Amino acid sequence: MTARTGLIGVIGGMGPLATVDFYRSVVAASGAARDQDHLPLLIWADPRIPDRSDAIVGGGPTPVPMLRVAAETLVAAGAERLVVACNTAHVFLDEALAGVPVPLLSLIEETADAAGRLAAAGERIAILCTDGTLASAVYQDALELRGVVAVEPTPAEQRAVMRGIRGAKAGALGDAAAALAPVVASLRRRGVTVVLAACTELPGVLAAVAGQVRVLDPMAVAAEALVRDHAALLHGEPGAGAGVVAKK
Amino acid sequence: MTARTGLIGVIGGMGPLATVDFYRSVVAASGAARDQDHLPLLIWADPRIPDRSDAIVGGGPTPVPMLRVAAETLVAAGAERLVVACNTAHVFLDEALAGVPVPLLSLIEETADAAGRLAAAGERIAILCTDGTLASAVYQDALELRGVVAVEPTPAEQRAVMRGIRGAKAGALGDAAAALAPVVASLRRRGVTVVLAACTELPGVLAAVAGQVRVLDPMAVAAEALVRDHAALLHGEPGAGAGVVAKK
Repeated sequence: MTARTGLIGVIGGMGPLATVDFYRSVVAASGAARDQDHLPLLIWADPRIPDRSDAIVGGGPTPVPMLRVAAETLVAAGAERLVVACNTAHVFLDEALAGVPVPLLSLIEETADAAGRLAAAGERIAILCTDGTLASAVYQDALELRGVVAVEPTPAEQRAVMRGIRGAKAGALGDAAAALAPVVASLRRRGVTVVLAACTELPGVLAAVAGQVRVLDPMAVAAEALVRDHAALLHGEPGAGAGVVAKK
Repeated sequence: MTARTGLIGVIGGMGPLATVDFYRSVVAASGAARDQDHLPLLIWADPRIPDRSDAIVGGGPTPVPMLRVAAETLVAAGAERLVVACNTAHVFLDEALAGVPVPLLSLIEETADAAGRLAAAGERIAILCTDGTLASAVYQDALELRGVVAVEPTPAEQRAVMRGIRGAKAGALGDAAAALAPVVASLRRRGVTVVLAACTELPGVLAAVAGQVRVLDPMAVAAEALVRDHAALLHGEPGAGAGVVAKK
């Protein structure tokens, strides 16, 4: 293949509905009026990949081998960019993508950039995510590099967040909203104005219970970054994709 | 690879929102409570594939080479089933999939089976689709084999249907609904009780304007068939997937 196609490989299925939402976000972000103006995607969505949070905090099997198979499958099929539609999976990407010859657009880095801009504008940011993402501190570390200290839920609140995430994964959106609403209310009393919804199951549920608190959705941030990056790549702008490469 | 994975290759992107909806239908049809219980999918969604209706009725470029590339890419990546998330594209599949060593689950055949059951129960069925699908008569032929004569829109109504489809592809859902509502009302006056929404852009818009007319959605029919077929394949039931194979 000589011509650049800009084919974007999406590693998804963690969970499936989150990948559906991410795919919808990319379609919406492209602002295209004809089929042919949308971004080309190849979406790997094998939900049998081991649970990422269990692997971090519960001693469960590691998702690294399947993440690596996914990346290699997508690259072999022509993907020129990779994006992983799961926040917690990012904990494993340094290992899973080692040597994979295609740049990653990182949810963590793109979202931390966005959060940094919000914090600079005076917003106070809390992070809601799985136990695994919280324990790994990938978001907290990326935010700290930008001078942002995120508010974290208390242990009791974090258990409610996990109930919300599991409810959303099972399609019990009412239960999920009931678990999350008091957490958001409590964060708001602590001065939080933005919740970083750092698990793909959360933005949809939080939208219903956030009230005046703004929801920062890494999937939407990443979808917009993909569209920008794709335009730069195809138009051959100097440094196109360089930001993406550097951020792996 | 020795173990059967049941990986389903989806040829999509025609248009992208329709593939998003199909993916959501498959997730919903699986009725799974955990990520790991969902179907494994690999979704090829390159919207640059030439317009299918233009190729049939407008002298536009053929989508066959890209459909073939999509199928070969998915099979090389391990797909053991193929499904094409575009009704009009089915006109080209005999040619595009010739020699591809993996069975196709056909939207047309699965939907014609469902329509045949509805007609046998006394329902009167109309078909709404692109100019290309209508001119190709793929649905009419499949229905006729089951003894069903579908009501077709008048030429003026068909122009309104195409306005509705183009509006939906461009995200102008209000315009699309305004174009389709009088068509559905007219069909209802002619005794129609079920509209076969034989273009992936239609079911979402029709749901808002159908009133008492039932919408038969080939994507939802295919999603349920995939879930049944997948369960049979993995549990090694005799003849698993045979119906799918025979229907190519």
